[in-house]
Amino acid sequence: MQKMFYPKSVMVCGVSSSPDNLGRSTVENLERFGFPGSVYLVSREGGDLNGRKIYQHIEDIEVVPELAVLLIPAKAIPDALERCGRKGIPRAIIQSAGFSEFTEGGRQLEENLLNISRRWNIRFMGPNCIGAVNLDNGLVLPFFPIYPEAMKKGPVSIISQSGGLIIDVMRLLILENIGFNKAISIGNKLDLNECDYLEFLISDPQTHCIAIYLENFADGRRLMALARQTEKPVVVLKANRFSSSHQIARFHTTALAGDDDVADAALKQAGIHRVDTLMEMADTLKIFSLSLMKGKKVGVICRSGGQAVTVADAVYRHGFTLAGFSDRVFDHVRKEIRAGVIRMTNPLDLGDVFDIRFYEEIIERVLQEPDVDGVVFGHTYTHDAAIPPTQGLIRATGRLSQQYGKPVVFFLVAGREHFFALRETHAFPIFADPEQAVQALAVSRRHHDHQSLRTATQPLPSGRVKPVGKAPLTPSFMSPEASFHLLRSNGLPVADFSVVTSLREACDAAEQIGYPVALKIASPEILHKTEIRGVHLNLKNRPALTAAFRAMNTGRVLVQKMSAPGREVMIGGRQDREFGPVILFGLGGIFVEVIRDVAMRICPIDHEEAVRMIEDTKGFRILQGFRKQPPADLKALNTCLVKVSRILVEHPEVQNLDINPMLIFDEGQGCIVVDVKIQIDGI
Amino acid sequence: MQKMFYPKSVMVCGVSSSPDNLGRSTVENLERFGFPGSVYLVSREGGDLNGRKIYQHIEDIEVVPELAVLLIPAKAIPDALERCGRKGIPRAIIQSAGFSEFTEGGRQLEENLLNISRRWNIRFMGPNCIGAVNLDNGLVLPFFPIYPEAMKKGPVSIISQSGGLIIDVMRLLILENIGFNKAISIGNKLDLNECDYLEFLISDPQTHCIAIYLENFADGRRLMALARQTEKPVVVLKANRFSSSHQIARFHTTALAGDDDVADAALKQAGIHRVDTLMEMADTLKIFSLSLMKGKKVGVICRSGGQAVTVADAVYRHGFTLAGFSDRVFDHVRKEIRAGVIRMTNPLDLGDVFDIRFYEEIIERVLQEPDVDGVVFGHTYTHDAAIPPTQGLIRATGRLSQQYGKPVVFFLVAGREHFFALRETHAFPIFADPEQAVQALAVSRRHHDHQSLRTATQPLPSGRVKPVGKAPLTPSFMSPEASFHLLRSNGLPVADFSVVTSLREACDAAEQIGYPVALKIASPEILHKTEIRGVHLNLKNRPALTAAFRAMNTGRVLVQKMSAPGREVMIGGRQDREFGPVILFGLGGIFVEVIRDVAMRICPIDHEEAVRMIEDTKGFRILQGFRKQPPADLKALNTCLVKVSRILVEHPEVQNLDINPMLIFDEGQGCIVVDVKIQIDGI
Repeated sequence: MQKMFYPKSVMVCGVSSSPDNLGRSTVENLERFGFPGSVYLVSREGGDLNGRKIYQHIEDIEVVPELAVLLIPAKAIPDALERCGRKGIPRAIIQSAGFSEFTEGGRQLEENLLNISRRWNIRFMGPNCIGAVNLDNGLVLPFFPIYPEAMKKGPVSIISQSGGLIIDVMRLLILENIGFNKAISIGNKLDLNECDYLEFLISDPQTHCIAIYLENFADGRRLMALARQTEKPVVVLKANRFSSSHQIARFHTTALAGDDDVADAALKQAGIHRVDTLMEMADTLKIFSLSLMKGKKVGVICRSGGQAVTVADAVYRHGFTLAGFSDRVFDHVRKEIRAGVIRMTNPLDLGDVFDIRFYEEIIERVLQEPDVDGVVFGHTYTHDAAIPPTQGLIRATGRLSQQYGKPVVFFLVAGREHFFALRETHAFPIFADPEQAVQALAVSRRHHDHQSLRTATQPLPSGRVKPVGKAPLTPSFMSPEASFHLLRSNGLPVADFSVVTSLREACDAAEQIGYPVALKIASPEILHKTEIRGVHLNLKNRPALTAAFRAMNTGRVLVQKMSAPGREVMIGGRQDREFGPVILFGLGGIFVEVIRDVAMRICPIDHEEAVRMIEDTKGFRILQGFRKQPPADLKALNTCLVKVSRILVEHPEVQNLDINPMLIFDEGQGCIVVDVKIQIDGI
Repeated sequence: MQKMFYPKSVMVCGVSSSPDNLGRSTVENLERFGFPGSVYLVSREGGDLNGRKIYQHIEDIEVVPELAVLLIPAKAIPDALERCGRKGIPRAIIQSAGFSEFTEGGRQLEENLLNISRRWNIRFMGPNCIGAVNLDNGLVLPFFPIYPEAMKKGPVSIISQSGGLIIDVMRLLILENIGFNKAISIGNKLDLNECDYLEFLISDPQTHCIAIYLENFADGRRLMALARQTEKPVVVLKANRFSSSHQIARFHTTALAGDDDVADAALKQAGIHRVDTLMEMADTLKIFSLSLMKGKKVGVICRSGGQAVTVADAVYRHGFTLAGFSDRVFDHVRKEIRAGVIRMTNPLDLGDVFDIRFYEEIIERVLQEPDVDGVVFGHTYTHDAAIPPTQGLIRATGRLSQQYGKPVVFFLVAGREHFFALRETHAFPIFADPEQAVQALAVSRRHHDHQSLRTATQPLPSGRVKPVGKAPLTPSFMSPEASFHLLRSNGLPVADFSVVTSLREACDAAEQIGYPVALKIASPEILHKTEIRGVHLNLKNRPALTAAFRAMNTGRVLVQKMSAPGREVMIGGRQDREFGPVILFGLGGIFVEVIRDVAMRICPIDHEEAVRMIEDTKGFRILQGFRKQPPADLKALNTCLVKVSRILVEHPEVQNLDINPMLIFDEGQGCIVVDVKIQIDGI
């Protein structure tokens, strides 16, 4: 993969000297950026471009290029790829469009390409992409003109499923003074996909942060595993949030865990920063140029009272608190300024101090405070003479942030005339307003927290756990007794039960289980039992049982021990197309059904993850003990979640699982499954 | 007030020719901006500045200036104001700091100023402000240099409680190519406050949108009333969200309706656009340069598939839908482009079309579609040659948006080198990404919806309804019977009750009311009755009543008719310091207590507002009829809300009111108040 971005020689197919030839731009880009390797031009027509020979056939080239770039009509691609294979070229970038993104015929063409590439052992990028830009070595392959002076090298590398959008991302990162190192347009990701590129970028010493734009996941679990194994921040804009039609689902788990909800949970669980917008992506990447925010306490220094108030608001909004400043800070402020127009508080409003160099000293004092985990500095200037000292301050702030290992977030509304001069003073990010500044600290802190979790969490098993790919054609329901057996054999507490077909059996079963009992229709097809009078609860004796049994008028009936009252929860699970087994948890009743208060994780989960999952729900307060109720048995609940997660991993045939309700008793009293529905793969 | 911003003559006090004199900057600003009125300079020391005479005394000026600008030490201000009064100057801007914002002594000084100004009938801006900037006539009063070439005239006027922040806002509006007309720094708003300026700006023909930064409200209800009477968009950044300490409240209403929650509800109710950040303020203002979004259907045209997907996501995220395009649009696309690489859908991805002029035609066709309420156009260019046609497209789009009375939101990530050239092509806003673009449409639609509501809603009564100002020193609780009487006499259904002091009376009362009854301690001081065993429910006969009465062991007891079961809701109310009477509504139990699912309005509310209020809550689904339950009697609930609102307006002595629970029965069956607590002003 390294050679894909650092080839010693490149062949570009589809070049002519015609002014509107696209391949020509690629060759000229390579020239402009001083790509040091050899470049070979190929086109049926031959001829030359700017004095360079254009070969008529791939076979004519004297050497074996390390990388082929193909920009010829889609239908000519298979033949070209075949020739590359014969020539021994090991890797290619197929830029041409007109494949599966467009027609069914295109899909056929793709099958073809895959076969050819496998036969010749060629790995390729695309099709339907603009290729790669590597500012590290001048490998600039897009088929439109790019100029070095418009680019800026930086710590971020980009992977994008959209070729158009990658231009926007590059431009935005440059506007924001971040820049980028490599930009990879992955197109239809027919062979190499986002995970392959991510794996490469994780190992690439030039890449410090990774930005990814995706419209679907090629391999969700591998993406998670890769992101978990690196300290490099991974920021993902996953679009297509609303594409999946909202099917009416008979399972809570399916209704509650839409594809995008699963993606949300999975990315979070892997410590990936999900963003919704390009701007948010740029803002998120900016903060990683600074030391991480390791705690919750913020020191705020501003140049106007309005800034101070709005920063304080943002500090609380993002879950931070204002640090206490010691007299060391205040004494220094007092020493240097004229009498008493500054209030000695955090936020410190230094509006009356006009010596910009003094700010550097104050920022340093605040960074020295042990109580301060990070600093927000709000700057304002009123005249042009303030620009050079402001630039000095920006540089100093960058240095101090590094020196003290704490982030200093600098925000400033620059005037139009100094806009770029101020932004580009230094490789140190400038934020535009208090919200952006504090939001960035929150991202930094989230990344820090994830780093400490990362090592503690068990890895995702690969191998046997695989995304299902497609929904089964003929799903079927397990019988109630089989469902209960599956849970029980996996160590889950289920209410005593028996399946009977006659009144006599029902009475015997009830005697054995012990009254009171419940009767439920045991037909797996009938899901909404209560609505068709298929359930009779709290039957205290034989006459009650008899009456109920007769009323049901059905063949198979479940006799079940009535449980003592407890708090109702639901545990669900399903196989997701992109991420495999997923587990859900929520409180019963309105929590799940009205306010959709559900926590979700990709399986397997361990005990720590189960604890976080329970705590993620609003209903957690009810379980903790609400209105003098004692706390519920959270330990028992926790164990059940881990066990259900194991069932989902070990039984990929389980398509949907819905434990609803499970009753949780008070602390130390355990819990019990009262009802369960399981849908499995049909045959 | 007009004269404050359009004076024929201005006197500036505190000017010297010293290079670091602040007043000097004010005078030079007026010169640079060509302020057409006369300017008189005053300073104890006299002398001259750039050839202009500096008067030693206000009294020496030959005429009576229409506006005085005072920039002298705080303690000298009263004397100067007194002299202004004697001279007959009717209005002043007091820029000096050092008043109540800083010390207690400053507060004393302010009292002084108010007395002087009232005596002489002077209206003034400030103190502690940077004055006003009026780009319409060059009245540029801040005491630091401002240059015409750095300013840009636009449709927005700004009111700001922070002088530092107003600089940021001005700069941001200019960066975003919006510009501003007037900027007003209101400082401590000792005399004139935000409402006075808002009233002026509403009548100012140069002002089309109003942006306000506030840290507290001088008169919340007047602000609401003013915003309601204008079509001009009012955008408020109200900071200090988290300032009020979270007091432990014995009333739901107080705990649930924190000061900032009330502000939120009030601004929304008045159709004011509340924003949290400066960037959001600028983005919100941008969209108002375009026609309003009158419906929910969006047409999307993009230049890359990635843009199309992310716009579609944003469309759904903001509650819009994608319009259907007719064949008129598609036929035109087909006619003009080469064969079949464009999919005929909305979003329309025109990535393969390189003729930028063609976009203009497509945008126009889409605007002509009757199903389309607004258009999002995502642009990308790949080379410099595209800049001039892109500028042409921006201008055309602005024209088309106006011509068809529908908004066209144009987004584009501009390259660094064309950044300002593209933004400033035309007085037409450019957005930075799909999210910003669609978010802006959502703001536009909210404004449109508010316009239709505005005329339908009854006005807020002024006069007798006044904010309370301060919490009463000695609040006290109404007795239960007085509380129930107050509700009943205002037409609310309350459960039959009687207050008794002996068992005999209790039995008599129960007979009369009819069993079953409840007994409750009737002491107003004991609020959490259930927790001290002060409540006995569902007493079915005399022996049960007797046992319960004896167990209570107290003097005054409420005997109350037990109600049939119903859905529990709570209705609360309180007097807010800034907005006067406020009403709250939520479902009982966990909806209010765990998830704080509460709707709030400033009183009075009418029936339509009550409907919206109920629908605002998540619990509304429960009232609509959940899981085959019939719907609750929403009409009865509605009526109760309106009646409680009236009580709160007509009884300003009611500090807190908590109806909890009220039971709502099924449709047509009404509702009934079971419990109420009322706290009133002490004496």
